[in-house]
Amino acid sequence: MTNIVVVGFGAMGTKTIEELNKKETVHVKAVIDTNPMYKGKFTNDYIKDNKQIPIYNSLEDIEWKDVELAIVTSASFLIQIEPLLVELANKEVNILTIAEEMSYPEATNKEIADKLNKLALNKNITILGTGINPGFILDLFIIVLSNTCLNINEIKATRVNDLSEFGTTVLRSQGVGLSVKEFEEDVRSKKVVGHVGFAQSIHLIAKAFKWELIRLKEEKEPIITNEKVTVQGEIIDKGNVIGCNHKAVAHFKNNKVITFEHPQQVCANNYPETKDEVEIQGVPNIKVKIEPEIPGGIGTVAMIINMIPLIIESQAGLINILDLPRLPSIFNE
Amino acid sequence: MTNIVVVGFGAMGTKTIEELNKKETVHVKAVIDTNPMYKGKFTNDYIKDNKQIPIYNSLEDIEWKDVELAIVTSASFLIQIEPLLVELANKEVNILTIAEEMSYPEATNKEIADKLNKLALNKNITILGTGINPGFILDLFIIVLSNTCLNINEIKATRVNDLSEFGTTVLRSQGVGLSVKEFEEDVRSKKVVGHVGFAQSIHLIAKAFKWELIRLKEEKEPIITNEKVTVQGEIIDKGNVIGCNHKAVAHFKNNKVITFEHPQQVCANNYPETKDEVEIQGVPNIKVKIEPEIPGGIGTVAMIINMIPLIIESQAGLINILDLPRLPSIFNE
Repeated sequence: MTNIVVVGFGAMGTKTIEELNKKETVHVKAVIDTNPMYKGKFTNDYIKDNKQIPIYNSLEDIEWKDVELAIVTSASFLIQIEPLLVELANKEVNILTIAEEMSYPEATNKEIADKLNKLALNKNITILGTGINPGFILDLFIIVLSNTCLNINEIKATRVNDLSEFGTTVLRSQGVGLSVKEFEEDVRSKKVVGHVGFAQSIHLIAKAFKWELIRLKEEKEPIITNEKVTVQGEIIDKGNVIGCNHKAVAHFKNNKVITFEHPQQVCANNYPETKDEVEIQGVPNIKVKIEPEIPGGIGTVAMIINMIPLIIESQAGLINILDLPRLPSIFNE
Repeated sequence: MTNIVVVGFGAMGTKTIEELNKKETVHVKAVIDTNPMYKGKFTNDYIKDNKQIPIYNSLEDIEWKDVELAIVTSASFLIQIEPLLVELANKEVNILTIAEEMSYPEATNKEIADKLNKLALNKNITILGTGINPGFILDLFIIVLSNTCLNINEIKATRVNDLSEFGTTVLRSQGVGLSVKEFEEDVRSKKVVGHVGFAQSIHLIAKAFKWELIRLKEEKEPIITNEKVTVQGEIIDKGNVIGCNHKAVAHFKNNKVITFEHPQQVCANNYPETKDEVEIQGVPNIKVKIEPEIPGGIGTVAMIINMIPLIIESQAGLINILDLPRLPSIFNE
């Protein structure tokens, strides 16, 4: 039995707890969320589940001695999450997080990555960032496909997903409902974030292929509706924004190029179906289509669950998805 | 510099040598093929290449001391290849082979697998079977995709490839040109072999998912042409065979099912395009299409080349594709 603490009681944290509660080999001991409204409450006050797990506001409310793993679902950016990771590492528990920048933190901030690695080695724990993207579609999946190639000249990949089901926080982060002018301002002020993780995926591929990155350029374009659409009860007029098409182009020393495109949009009316598409130009050429796209929510929770036994058995340190064995782990049920 | 000996100077051996000769980090020291016509000859007597590599009829003609790896491309079945593998292991070189049954030899003959494992440990070498199928499409690829699933109920996969470019040996092994009656007789007498490797792929998945196999059934059906087609200069009449549709259905204790279908056929006239298709029914459902299929010839050579550094660095023993890290290895060129 693996004792687990889940940090963050948002959408992903909740779904992760629900799935963990179905397993006989793991036990969610406690949940941590800093929101004061949860103080003294239990998970089954909020989710349909017959396991009553206490929710605490602080790490200090828990006895960590018998906890083997903390699953952190609370933030995207390295700089936001670093203090929490340090605090958890000092409790000497393994850490699995879906913070996008933690899938390959060296890509964003080598200093923080080195610090976390040193701390993890020192405390004899493992720290891993995982998720569907970054963590799978635009990195691991491409790297695994590349095993069948003699040579690769260029990689193009597109992930199209649908924001219709998401809440206002996510819609806002992609600029849904804004005018084009507002969108452009919000890209500049970083209220519209697009996809977090291109740098991580590209550096993971560069590491796997031993390619030397010389330039990485990102661009965010508004996706504009040509008809009135209704999203979560809100009407968006023709000419306004229903999503963000985030692109990244990476150049490598040996003239290789990676082009990623990730339109996140409300797939209403005439807008395209969701999909994941990967095209490798090389020997041989490979064209893969996954339709619909591997869903971000379920996919991320699956990546968390499948990595649990692997991270617990892994060597100490800050690791990434390429350091783990190929085996998934839950399917003995 | 890794010194390599290639065993088998057929289509795959030749293509492998051509690719290895382009690399600066490996050196093909010698080739072995038992065909007496090659005695005293060099590779560049047969292939356009400016590297002159001697071809020998016997393992005993080579000084093995500085050889790190033998690449064996000479047979499909465990029972055919076992004596050669034992002989090579006794030379204390790592062995990489594309013999289909060697991708997971435990699936066919646990006794031989145990013997090879013991010998490999004893000689401190690594033995690995690799290839595109088995070795990638119907096993590794599915296993990697499964990382994004919370649950899997059923797996269906189809690989459709085109025999048009193959020589008479391959065409014969799939029954091309036979009448339906002859095809059925040749399936019984095992002259028509269909695909070699369903058992290996299925056991690799079972291992990865910890599923307990209770039944594996295979079936070979003739693919019949409804018009006259010409294959390698030979005319095949309407009603005769242009390929073999080999199917496998595996049942597992927990009611999971795997259904594989691998029609190998001459894709003339109205016959389907080639493709690889994987469908996972579970949470979430995943539908992947690779079109055209990842080509068997180039793909197999790429798997060999990408695995070379990994097998040399691997722990000793008889290993399989799941034991290796996720990194490919050639792309620093």
